[in-house]
Amino acid sequence: MKNIEQKILNLLKAAKEASLKLGNISARDKDRAISAMASELLKNTGYILSENAKDVALANKAGISEALVDRLTLTQKRIKEMADSLKQVAALKDPVGKILRQWKRPNELIIKKVSVPIGVIGIIYESRPNVTSDCAGLSLKSGNACVLRGGSEAINSNIAIHKVIAKCLEKFGIPKAAITMIDVADRSLVEFLLKQDSLIDVIIPRGGESLIRYVAENSLIPVIKHYKGVCHLYVDKDADIEMALDIMLNAKVQRPGVCNAIEKMLVHKRIAHKFLPKAAGVLDDKGVELRGCSETLKILKGIKKAAEKDWYEEYLDLILAIKVVNGADEAIAHINKYGSRHSDAIVTKNKLTAERFLKEVDSACVYHNASTRFTDGYQFGMGAEIGISTDKIHARGPMALEELCTYKYIILGSGQLRT
Amino acid sequence: MKNIEQKILNLLKAAKEASLKLGNISARDKDRAISAMASELLKNTGYILSENAKDVALANKAGISEALVDRLTLTQKRIKEMADSLKQVAALKDPVGKILRQWKRPNELIIKKVSVPIGVIGIIYESRPNVTSDCAGLSLKSGNACVLRGGSEAINSNIAIHKVIAKCLEKFGIPKAAITMIDVADRSLVEFLLKQDSLIDVIIPRGGESLIRYVAENSLIPVIKHYKGVCHLYVDKDADIEMALDIMLNAKVQRPGVCNAIEKMLVHKRIAHKFLPKAAGVLDDKGVELRGCSETLKILKGIKKAAEKDWYEEYLDLILAIKVVNGADEAIAHINKYGSRHSDAIVTKNKLTAERFLKEVDSACVYHNASTRFTDGYQFGMGAEIGISTDKIHARGPMALEELCTYKYIILGSGQLRT
Repeated sequence: MKNIEQKILNLLKAAKEASLKLGNISARDKDRAISAMASELLKNTGYILSENAKDVALANKAGISEALVDRLTLTQKRIKEMADSLKQVAALKDPVGKILRQWKRPNELIIKKVSVPIGVIGIIYESRPNVTSDCAGLSLKSGNACVLRGGSEAINSNIAIHKVIAKCLEKFGIPKAAITMIDVADRSLVEFLLKQDSLIDVIIPRGGESLIRYVAENSLIPVIKHYKGVCHLYVDKDADIEMALDIMLNAKVQRPGVCNAIEKMLVHKRIAHKFLPKAAGVLDDKGVELRGCSETLKILKGIKKAAEKDWYEEYLDLILAIKVVNGADEAIAHINKYGSRHSDAIVTKNKLTAERFLKEVDSACVYHNASTRFTDGYQFGMGAEIGISTDKIHARGPMALEELCTYKYIILGSGQLRT
Repeated sequence: MKNIEQKILNLLKAAKEASLKLGNISARDKDRAISAMASELLKNTGYILSENAKDVALANKAGISEALVDRLTLTQKRIKEMADSLKQVAALKDPVGKILRQWKRPNELIIKKVSVPIGVIGIIYESRPNVTSDCAGLSLKSGNACVLRGGSEAINSNIAIHKVIAKCLEKFGIPKAAITMIDVADRSLVEFLLKQDSLIDVIIPRGGESLIRYVAENSLIPVIKHYKGVCHLYVDKDADIEMALDIMLNAKVQRPGVCNAIEKMLVHKRIAHKFLPKAAGVLDDKGVELRGCSETLKILKGIKKAAEKDWYEEYLDLILAIKVVNGADEAIAHINKYGSRHSDAIVTKNKLTAERFLKEVDSACVYHNASTRFTDGYQFGMGAEIGISTDKIHARGPMALEELCTYKYIILGSGQLRT
C-alpha cells in the first residue's frame, strides 16, 4: 500500500471513531459548535479570501471557463451567506433520537424504532467552496462524521475553510475528525476512497452529471445520487390559462440555472392554439429560446425544431422545449420516459386528470397548479438540504436532516426467548 | 450488442413498463393474484417436483455438497410452505398509498408525503427455489415489478415455479412482466444486468457473502445488502445469571444456522468466574463447541483458544466464541469493531448500563434482556421479510413490505409561484 493510501485510511479510521462518539454529544453542544463555526468564518474572512485568491489565480492561468471561475470565487458576501447558512442549521430541531414508532408484541417485547445518525458521510464535490461548510454543518447537526473531498481547483479555499471550522469542535467535546478533509488531488485516490465501505457509510456526490456517474461507477459504498433536473410543466386542456402562464414563467425564468426550473413544456392539443401564442409572447419578452415539436412549429412559426436529444437535456439556461400532446396519458408517458424523476407539474382545473398525473408520474415531487421551483428543503419547511435526490432508495427529493439519519430498533425485554 | 443482451434488455423494458402500470392495480386484485399463485403452486406440485428432480440429479452428478443439495431439494412439504407464505403475504395490509405525513405551508401549498412502490426490484439469489415465489409475492404486494435471477443449479425448478405463478397475473389485469425471470446461467450476463440502472431501481442479493460482495462490486444499481450476522450477547456484571443462561442458550442453539443466532458471547470479568462454568455446562449438553480468549481459558480449562479471525466469523453452527471483557465500554467497542451491525443483546439489571449499550452499539437491532433470535419480520409484527438488511441506507434490520416502498411528495397548489 502506498503511503498516501495509508494516510487516507488513517483519516477514515479517525472519522469512523469520531462518528461513534458523536452519539454522546448533546444537541446543545452540536449547535454551539455549529454557531461557533459561523462566527469563525466571519472572523477569518480575510484569511479565507486570500487563500481563495490563490485558487482563482491558478484557475485563470489554466484558462478555466468563466462560469467555473465564478463558482469558485468567494466574496465577503458569499462568506457571510455560508455563515448565515450554518446559523440556520444550528437553529433547526435535532433529528437524532426521535422515536419514529413504538409498539408492544404479544410476548411483551417493546420495540422502538429510533432515528440515529448514518455514521460517516463522504461528500465528493466540485468547485464550490461553500459546500465545505454547508455539508460539514448538516453532517454535524445530524450526528454524522463527514469526510470531505472537494475539487482540486478549490483546494486552497477548502483547506482554509476546513481549518477555520474544524477548530470549533474540540472545545465542545467533539472529536476533530468529525469533520475530516481529504486534501489530495489525485483521482486514483478518490477511487481508493470509494472502496472503503467498512469506514464510510454513504457517499453523496455534489456536482455535475459526469462527477456523479464517475462516483456511482467506482463506489463500493452506497451512493445517493442527485442527478439532473429535467422538469416538466404539463398544461392540460382544462387549465386556467392565466395560471398556466404565470406558473410557466415562474418555473422557467425566475432562476433558470437550478435543477427545479422547468426545461420542457407539454401542452394539450386542444388548448395549444390558444395557449402557445400567449406563452411564446411572454417567454420571448424574457429572452427564452423556444424549441418545438413539429406540431408546435405549426403554431409557433419560425422557432427551432427540437431534436430527440432535446427531450433528455437539462439546459440550465433560458431555453424551453415544447411538445404538443394528445392528452394526459401521452404527457405522463413522455415524462416517465424522458424526465429525470425530479419535479413535474400539471396545470388543470380537472381533479380527475390531476389525480392521474400525480399518481402516475414517477417523480420525487409532483405538483398540481404550482411551480416546480418549490422543490427545496426550505420551501418544504424541512430546513437546509444536502441536495435533491433523484434516487428512489433511502431519500427522494429534498434531502435534509431527517434523511441524513437512519434508524435502529431497540428491543426491551424481560427474558423473552424465541419458541 | 449480443442477441442475448438484447433479449435481456427487452425483458427489463417490459418489467419497467409493467411497474408503471402496477400503481393502478387495486390492493384487492394484487391479493387475489397472490392467492391464486398459492393455489397454483399446490395444484402443480407434481410438475414442480419433477422439474426440481432434474436439478437435483444434475447437482448430485456434479458432486455438489450435501448441504447445497438439501437447499436445492423441494418436497411436497416445502411447496406447501411456499404456498402458505404467499397466502400470508396476501393477508397483510397494502403498504402502498399511505399518507406518511401531510402539512400545509404558509403560502397554502399542501405537501403530502405518500408511500409508493420502488419500481423494479432485481433479486439475485442462489440455490433455494422458494426465493422465487417468496420474492415474487412480496414484490407484487408492494406494487413492484421484480426481475428474478436465480442460481444456475436451480434453473429448472425456478423456471417451473415462475411458469406456474406468472400465469396468475393477467386475469387480474396485471401485466405478466410484473414477475420476470432471467433464465440465463452466464455470469457475464449478470454483470450486464447489474449495469441497467435506468431499468432496475434496486438490487437485493440473497445468498452467501461472496454472492453479495460480487453483486456490490459489479452493480451500478443501488444494492441493499444482507450480509452475515455476527451477533453478540454481552453478559454484564449486573446480569440475572439465570436469565443470561436462558437467553444464551436460546440465541445460540434454538436454530444455530440462521443469521440472528449469536456467534459470540462477551462476559464481564466480575461475573465470569460464576457465570462461565454454568454456561459451559449447559452449552456442552447441547453439543456446542466453545472457543475462548486467554481469560476465558483460565476459567474454562481445555477449550480451544479463539484466534483473531474467530471474532469476525459467522459460524452458522454449534460453535460459540467467548471473551471476558472489563466492562460495557470494552463490550461496545468490541461489537462495533468485529460485529456485522445485525443484532446484539445485553443482559443486565442495571438500567444505565443497558441504555449506554443500546445507544452506542451501532447495530440494526439492539436488545435488552431478550434473545437476538427475535430479529425477524414476523417476530417484529411486520409480516414476511425479503431479508435482514445490514446496510444503513434505506432499510435496516428486517426488510418487509414497508421497506419495499419509497415515497413521493405530492404538492397541491392554487397557482403558487416562488418569489
